[in-house]
Amino acid sequence: MTRNTIKFTPLIDSLPSSVPFVGPETQERFRSSKFLARLGANENVFGPSPFAIKAMQQESKNLWMYGDPENHDLKEALADHHQINKNEIIVGEGIDGLLGYLARMLITPGDTVVTSNGAYPTFNFHVSGYGGVLHKVPYKNDMEDTEALINKAVEVGAKLIYLANPDNPMGTWHPSNVITKLINSVPDGCLLILDEAYIEFADKDVASKLDPSSSKVIRMRTFSKGYGLAGARIGYGIGHPELIKGFDKIRNHFGVSRISQIGALHALLDQNHLDKTILLVKESRDKIAKIALTNGLKPIPSSANFVCIDCNSDGDFARKLLGQLIDNGIFVRMPFVMPQDRAIRISCGTKKDLELLEQILPRALSAIRTN
Amino acid sequence: MTRNTIKFTPLIDSLPSSVPFVGPETQERFRSSKFLARLGANENVFGPSPFAIKAMQQESKNLWMYGDPENHDLKEALADHHQINKNEIIVGEGIDGLLGYLARMLITPGDTVVTSNGAYPTFNFHVSGYGGVLHKVPYKNDMEDTEALINKAVEVGAKLIYLANPDNPMGTWHPSNVITKLINSVPDGCLLILDEAYIEFADKDVASKLDPSSSKVIRMRTFSKGYGLAGARIGYGIGHPELIKGFDKIRNHFGVSRISQIGALHALLDQNHLDKTILLVKESRDKIAKIALTNGLKPIPSSANFVCIDCNSDGDFARKLLGQLIDNGIFVRMPFVMPQDRAIRISCGTKKDLELLEQILPRALSAIRTN
Repeated sequence: MTRNTIKFTPLIDSLPSSVPFVGPETQERFRSSKFLARLGANENVFGPSPFAIKAMQQESKNLWMYGDPENHDLKEALADHHQINKNEIIVGEGIDGLLGYLARMLITPGDTVVTSNGAYPTFNFHVSGYGGVLHKVPYKNDMEDTEALINKAVEVGAKLIYLANPDNPMGTWHPSNVITKLINSVPDGCLLILDEAYIEFADKDVASKLDPSSSKVIRMRTFSKGYGLAGARIGYGIGHPELIKGFDKIRNHFGVSRISQIGALHALLDQNHLDKTILLVKESRDKIAKIALTNGLKPIPSSANFVCIDCNSDGDFARKLLGQLIDNGIFVRMPFVMPQDRAIRISCGTKKDLELLEQILPRALSAIRTN
Repeated sequence: MTRNTIKFTPLIDSLPSSVPFVGPETQERFRSSKFLARLGANENVFGPSPFAIKAMQQESKNLWMYGDPENHDLKEALADHHQINKNEIIVGEGIDGLLGYLARMLITPGDTVVTSNGAYPTFNFHVSGYGGVLHKVPYKNDMEDTEALINKAVEVGAKLIYLANPDNPMGTWHPSNVITKLINSVPDGCLLILDEAYIEFADKDVASKLDPSSSKVIRMRTFSKGYGLAGARIGYGIGHPELIKGFDKIRNHFGVSRISQIGALHALLDQNHLDKTILLVKESRDKIAKIALTNGLKPIPSSANFVCIDCNSDGDFARKLLGQLIDNGIFVRMPFVMPQDRAIRISCGTKKDLELLEQILPRALSAIRTN
């Protein structure tokens, strides 16, 4: 048999074999040793609510049952939490899964999409996967440039705009009034995907008011970050009921694990744990900033659970530093695109994680400087 | 705002809002009471391996970490278990998720697909979702008709053929030599999806030899049935490496929960528990058959973890019986299509479940007959 007997669609044939992210486990297998600190994927090292852990442990024996495909109980709790209606919420396999569904719902080959150059690669992966054409605008002062996004969307007749607030990978953010203005400027026939994965870590004035009566925006939220359930793969979108209804036409109705539904529900109900987590994250951000400053590097202010550190040099320097940290057992990542690639991105860690960083960073820097 | 400002693709606009399955939880909310026996979704009431449960419970606190997007450890164990190579295996969000990816990889609007009339609706949902045109051949003696499937595929130039062995919803099966012959007859440029979700419950001679060097077939396997992990949403496909590689171009790389990966791995390693489960399922099948016979109904031989009971009448009668059982707290389902809809489908249950069935069934029958 030959490869040619498998008849992929022309679109699939045209796609590259690249994957959006190489996981730390792949790197560990390659290095033949485990990372000592896992600070590269913006995971929440402080972990999920003990109340959620207990509920998930109890549910393990019930895993012979499919989860509720309607995610009813979780949606009811989310509706209550956000003071919106259940039919304005879609629950899915993480924001990643929801972005894939959205691209499928709105993009046919040749449709245009606007994002920032260096923003979330998984979004680009899904858009390209449906044949969408990406237009990327540059960051401005390490922030996503809301005006440039709108102008480009108008220029190319975009069907989708993507913006993360707070931004990933930079950690920068826009206050709610800028976001509200952005939403109001979305051209007709276009949808803004407002990725608020990190919103729980930001000050209260960063989240603009939820208004699911608007068909101009869908908000993406997740249990992966603030709620510490990245491995559970569960997130949600908030949007206009007509848009939300569209997901049901195509989604994997049984795609979310029963345990993840239970875990997310109990995590949501434990806002006390979330509050504690947010304090720990703020402490950790401050500590990372301090370590950076001590080493003559410049922490970029962040409203997320990570800090980008400007290494005061170019991408080559930052990549070398990243390599040194990884070689020394600290898993970190960095922005892909100039000039943001002068920075490395460090997720908030435990005390122990950051002690290790404090130890390794000066050594890593001098190793590069002496080479 | 009006609905029209949301610009779905024409394909999405054309899709119905129907969902493939209404879950038992939805029915429970509608009835305002819980089912007493859950025998409608072919779940495995005997549950997952205690070894897997323990591993998942221990992993709960690690859920702050994303799962390995390569599913490396599970794929390695599967490769070992099946004596195949890792690059011949794709792990995904249940067979449902994998069917969705496959449809996307191979189907563009207008492409033709062949299945049996009354076979798995979720497959049809995905095919239609990508604009595929379904051609359905009738069952023959309550079995999927392999010759008719091939003839229709040749006639319409199908890109995909779907066959479940053992079959769902009927429970009937083909021996391996028939399946081998079917695989060999798949026309060039067409792919057979051999859904073996229930294969663990069948006699050894039902599973034909795995040969991932063939690009004519992809096997679908799951941890939802034999391994009792339906709620974990994890399944796998076995196929030619070039086909398997295609999934990476489009799949949600972080779609499978970390706990599901751990649960599946440990369930696979506990073949002893699987053997016990199979014995319990066989006992339960025999008991369901006996209950049917006692009530003057005809059990259809099954190689799966459910039994279809021929009610010796028409679809209206079977639907009434189904309604009676549901009203009395027994969740069951039935085939959708004539003449298979003369039967109701009962999943294997615990002793207690079947005692309830034994009690309710005669009452349900007499309730219909006296009305």
